[in-house]
Amino acid sequence: MKKLKLGVIGTGRIGKVHIATLVQSVAQAEVVAVADINLKGAQEVAASFGITTVFTNYQDVINHPDVEAVVICSPTDTHAQYIIEIAQAGKHIFCEKPVDLSLEVIQGALEAVKKAGVKLMVGFNRRFDPNFIKIKQLVEAGNIGDPHILKITSRDPAPPPAEYSAVSGGMFMDMTIHDFDMARYIVGSEVTEVYTNAAVLVDPAIGAAGDVDTAIITLTFANGAMGVIDNSRKAVYGYDQRIEIFGSKGMASADNNYPENHRFFGADGVHGSLPLNFFMERYLESYANEMKIFCTAVVNNLSLPVTGIDGLQSVAIALAAKKSYLEHRPVKLSEVLNVI
Amino acid sequence: MKKLKLGVIGTGRIGKVHIATLVQSVAQAEVVAVADINLKGAQEVAASFGITTVFTNYQDVINHPDVEAVVICSPTDTHAQYIIEIAQAGKHIFCEKPVDLSLEVIQGALEAVKKAGVKLMVGFNRRFDPNFIKIKQLVEAGNIGDPHILKITSRDPAPPPAEYSAVSGGMFMDMTIHDFDMARYIVGSEVTEVYTNAAVLVDPAIGAAGDVDTAIITLTFANGAMGVIDNSRKAVYGYDQRIEIFGSKGMASADNNYPENHRFFGADGVHGSLPLNFFMERYLESYANEMKIFCTAVVNNLSLPVTGIDGLQSVAIALAAKKSYLEHRPVKLSEVLNVI
Amino acid sequence: MKKLKLGVIGTGRIGKVHIATLVQSVAQAEVVAVADINLKGAQEVAASFGITTVFTNYQDVINHPDVEAVVICSPTDTHAQYIIEIAQAGKHIFCEKPVDLSLEVIQGALEAVKKAGVKLMVGFNRRFDPNFIKIKQLVEAGNIGDPHILKITSRDPAPPPAEYSAVSGGMFMDMTIHDFDMARYIVGSEVTEVYTNAAVLVDPAIGAAGDVDTAIITLTFANGAMGVIDNSRKAVYGYDQRIEIFGSKGMASADNNYPENHRFFGADGVHGSLPLNFFMERYLESYANEMKIFCTAVVNNLSLPVTGIDGLQSVAIALAAKKSYLEHRPVKLSEVLNVI
Amino acid sequence: MKKLKLGVIGTGRIGKVHIATLVQSVAQAEVVAVADINLKGAQEVAASFGITTVFTNYQDVINHPDVEAVVICSPTDTHAQYIIEIAQAGKHIFCEKPVDLSLEVIQGALEAVKKAGVKLMVGFNRRFDPNFIKIKQLVEAGNIGDPHILKITSRDPAPPPAEYSAVSGGMFMDMTIHDFDMARYIVGSEVTEVYTNAAVLVDPAIGAAGDVDTAIITLTFANGAMGVIDNSRKAVYGYDQRIEIFGSKGMASADNNYPENHRFFGADGVHGSLPLNFFMERYLESYANEMKIFCTAVVNNLSLPVTGIDGLQSVAIALAAKKSYLEHRPVKLSEVLNVI
Repeated sequence: MKKLKLGVIGTGRIGKVHIATLVQSVAQAEVVAVADINLKGAQEVAASFGITTVFTNYQDVINHPDVEAVVICSPTDTHAQYIIEIAQAGKHIFCEKPVDLSLEVIQGALEAVKKAGVKLMVGFNRRFDPNFIKIKQLVEAGNIGDPHILKITSRDPAPPPAEYSAVSGGMFMDMTIHDFDMARYIVGSEVTEVYTNAAVLVDPAIGAAGDVDTAIITLTFANGAMGVIDNSRKAVYGYDQRIEIFGSKGMASADNNYPENHRFFGADGVHGSLPLNFFMERYLESYANEMKIFCTAVVNNLSLPVTGIDGLQSVAIALAAKKSYLEHRPVKLSEVLNVI
Repeated sequence: MKKLKLGVIGTGRIGKVHIATLVQSVAQAEVVAVADINLKGAQEVAASFGITTVFTNYQDVINHPDVEAVVICSPTDTHAQYIIEIAQAGKHIFCEKPVDLSLEVIQGALEAVKKAGVKLMVGFNRRFDPNFIKIKQLVEAGNIGDPHILKITSRDPAPPPAEYSAVSGGMFMDMTIHDFDMARYIVGSEVTEVYTNAAVLVDPAIGAAGDVDTAIITLTFANGAMGVIDNSRKAVYGYDQRIEIFGSKGMASADNNYPENHRFFGADGVHGSLPLNFFMERYLESYANEMKIFCTAVVNNLSLPVTGIDGLQSVAIALAAKKSYLEHRPVKLSEVLNVI
Repeated sequence: MKKLKLGVIGTGRIGKVHIATLVQSVAQAEVVAVADINLKGAQEVAASFGITTVFTNYQDVINHPDVEAVVICSPTDTHAQYIIEIAQAGKHIFCEKPVDLSLEVIQGALEAVKKAGVKLMVGFNRRFDPNFIKIKQLVEAGNIGDPHILKITSRDPAPPPAEYSAVSGGMFMDMTIHDFDMARYIVGSEVTEVYTNAAVLVDPAIGAAGDVDTAIITLTFANGAMGVIDNSRKAVYGYDQRIEIFGSKGMASADNNYPENHRFFGADGVHGSLPLNFFMERYLESYANEMKIFCTAVVNNLSLPVTGIDGLQSVAIALAAKKSYLEHRPVKLSEVLNVI
Repeated sequence: MKKLKLGVIGTGRIGKVHIATLVQSVAQAEVVAVADINLKGAQEVAASFGITTVFTNYQDVINHPDVEAVVICSPTDTHAQYIIEIAQAGKHIFCEKPVDLSLEVIQGALEAVKKAGVKLMVGFNRRFDPNFIKIKQLVEAGNIGDPHILKITSRDPAPPPAEYSAVSGGMFMDMTIHDFDMARYIVGSEVTEVYTNAAVLVDPAIGAAGDVDTAIITLTFANGAMGVIDNSRKAVYGYDQRIEIFGSKGMASADNNYPENHRFFGADGVHGSLPLNFFMERYLESYANEMKIFCTAVVNNLSLPVTGIDGLQSVAIALAAKKSYLEHRPVKLSEVLNVI
């Protein structure tokens, strides 16, 4: 079997997830080098997965002669620059979301990718979750008919530190961005307008940092459908990730995943376990699927299921959502996309 | 047992529901007279429930010496006038929703009620549905903590004739009005702002009649919570009535009701029955509870759980929702309430 | 509409259920007389339902010239005698289960019915529960294919007083008898053999009274299928009534009924309400359906869905179950039926 | 980290499962050698997991100087002999179920293990399934109180070839044996008596081979509880693995696992996916947990959660179940255990 030789930049939380997947679950992958500015951390990760080549400088991964594709797991503000450099080195790219907080910067990176003729896949792993795959299949098979109403519930078990907002671009950019991508994916049409109702209900420190922690975001799609996303940074009962799509012929919904399916009937009621609490448990399978698809597609020169355009559109919706919140009015996507 | 002697004005669909409940299920009620401009229809209904006094003129019910309370089941545009006349006759009133399409007219009716010192209850029967009672109890008991996000899904199995919109005041006034009341009831706070995303996706004839058939309506509450209602005039799988309330300490949700709880596991999947398809099946128990509470409260001079103010507020939200749709912007409740 | 004029013997718990149903829900019924040896109790019941003719002596009901059919709700040891007398009076009969504890006595009653040419229906109300109707329909429609395994779970919320066992004939005769009838009904074939594993696990007083309170009963059917019933006199979480039928083409199952469909997600788990706790709540609809079918069938001279043979067979299975328990071996139905 | 060096005998279906788990998921394990009489098959498996030492002769694995523990995945009739030889070589043992079809032979193997002072774990992987772990925890924590009724449903998606019965010892020995072990595990008490109702309902060829394909097996436990297992070789809707335990304080149940949690509401009903269809998907996690526990326990000299006695008891119950079926009567465990 032809294997894809990969380098990974960034060995933090998500970097470790991808390395573990590539080493343990992707038969067509071989991780030949990793890099992190925290060399000691990178060395530990590398050792635990039998990877012998470790660098401090990300460019050493890019320039490593065996590396055919690079997985970018470094902080958001480095993504675009790395994409450009990897593209120029003629290697394929998997980049974590978001590509960047600026549409112009993303645009620049996508042009470099296009010019170099390399492949770029953006890490919207949830598209590869078995629940959402099933919903997408039902939509595509026509079971729900014309889509009318999309509902996404996306709530985290606990907020990140308030200071994270400044780095991440805020809730719409670091959390809802997954939901924006999912909305486009499930409905199969572009978002044309956004209206955001948001507030600080969980933690005042988040507000002090200029961000929100609770939101209801209404979407209008080009095909006439409408949608709503509700977000909270803190669901005490765990990680809440549900989708419902309603159309002219029916409705499809996906519930959360649970660690097991027990129920206890006591004198005081019926009880069950909480949903899987952490994104790495809930989306474990999606991360594995994502990497398998990336590696297989690159090795066999197939088209990728999540492109740079997907990365750009989701950021555009996030920017429109923020603008809608700040200006307290519905905002057309064209308002933010036109400025590119 | 002291019984409340009631007259009923209007023996159409909802009139029959209330008469059946009063006769068969409310021990404290006695229906002594009914009226309908369709005398033959009224006579048939009366006969089937053993009621012997039937009038064409509603005023004969109001003025009937035995009648202590009147149930108004006539068309919306008669409600306010009847309320005023019944109040002036010193009798108690149960009035179907909406009270009227105009806030000024409602205001006038409420003043007459106040002046007369009689009791008025508005027919928001869903408050008495066992599912929603349970959700309300959990909110009031503090189980969900501070409410953050309310979600109401309310979809009808089939649209009314397009020409009905003109009479009814449109979808927000004839259908969503129940959801507006439910939103205020569950959250326990007034709606301060509304944003409406609506469209004609089900039937162009509805659009031609100046109405919409699909909507996502975002609500802001005085206590800081936010909410979203999604409506469709046509869910092919039946009557879809669900509520979810999410707060700082947990989430409570109420699913639809089903005719039975079977599941069939065949070679091609797992199958179950559709939800109860019609509001009279789904809300049968709520109609009975509603009338029991009304009669008991009047007989025992207790306060009523749904007041004229509730009738007024829900209409105000409906007007704001329509205005938001027409002007494509968030509308504050004060914009419509200030005009009274 | 032609109405059936009924008399009711016995105004205790089940008598009241049937009277309420007949008066409030069965359009084709008119209760013209009731009797109970407890005259005062009977008078109270009669008054609350507007029935004016009340007797102490059951024969006055049977002989009442207006009475066309009699509903027997008196203690088990009177059933057979009353059936015989009512049959001889040429009137139709609805009799609560069990018909009697002795097969010979039942046989005698059925002969009297046959000779008189009147109709007899035995009160296996659960056949008219919407859940079990659905399961039966799936079996009859062939959806499950050939039946292989039937599972019935039937647990009461609390045991009757220990002394009740002596009167009732014990758990198999007063409780499991419903399940025996259901087993025959769902599988559509006669039980040919029974094996009983039973014990006193709930209350030693029940054992002292010569009865058991917990059992697993294995059934063999003439068509080759097999079944199992599990019983307990005390399920702390309420009334547990479930059925599962497994066959060559699939499986159908019916779950319990619940007062509402809420779920609460708290930090400590997911919680729901207990099933309906009492047989009158759970089987309310089945009692109403049962009486409607009885009255309609009698008025229109249709065949009845539960016959005297059904009453006899279920008692035979109960006797075989008891014999199996006492003799600690599988018992063929022919062993108890041959003695008639 | 101290690693356990293992050899694996048998590289067929279950051997591959264990090797994959040990290589990919058990950090404390290192597979140093494998053997199979089918050398080519063994070489392919070894290559795909990076194992370089492959033998035809199982004794080469046992005698390999690096091997500290041996995993037996060969046919049942070799298990006891291999256990004896491995024990005599002073190495630890993981053996697939059943240990043997003869209690005397098992007894001999266990004596060799005892004499050698090595550890032996029998492969009842289902004990490590998250659903059943949860049920066991609830029982042990006292949530259900005293156990009264245990129900196990265990149905395969498709029967093995009829000729397999002769090799495997038949359905009770190759399939129900898992349920017998689970019954003892969940109830926490020994089975004292068995009654079997079984038949050939799926495939006459199975009957021709002297086996059955459908059964209801009633169990009596030493602690007074009772239980029932229902088995079928063919559930068209997939692999059906459920447990319910009912006691004085409540009931705990575990449902099947599903590939995802979607539901589709169409005009003709509500639909969902079938349960996971194959034991390797359903019990994937349990296999991994099992091997982790085995390796960790051996490395740290801890006691094992499934012992040789568990292996013996489950076979004894299977023999009693078969005897009960053949002799058509309840059979005490002492009848089969006394012959040892």
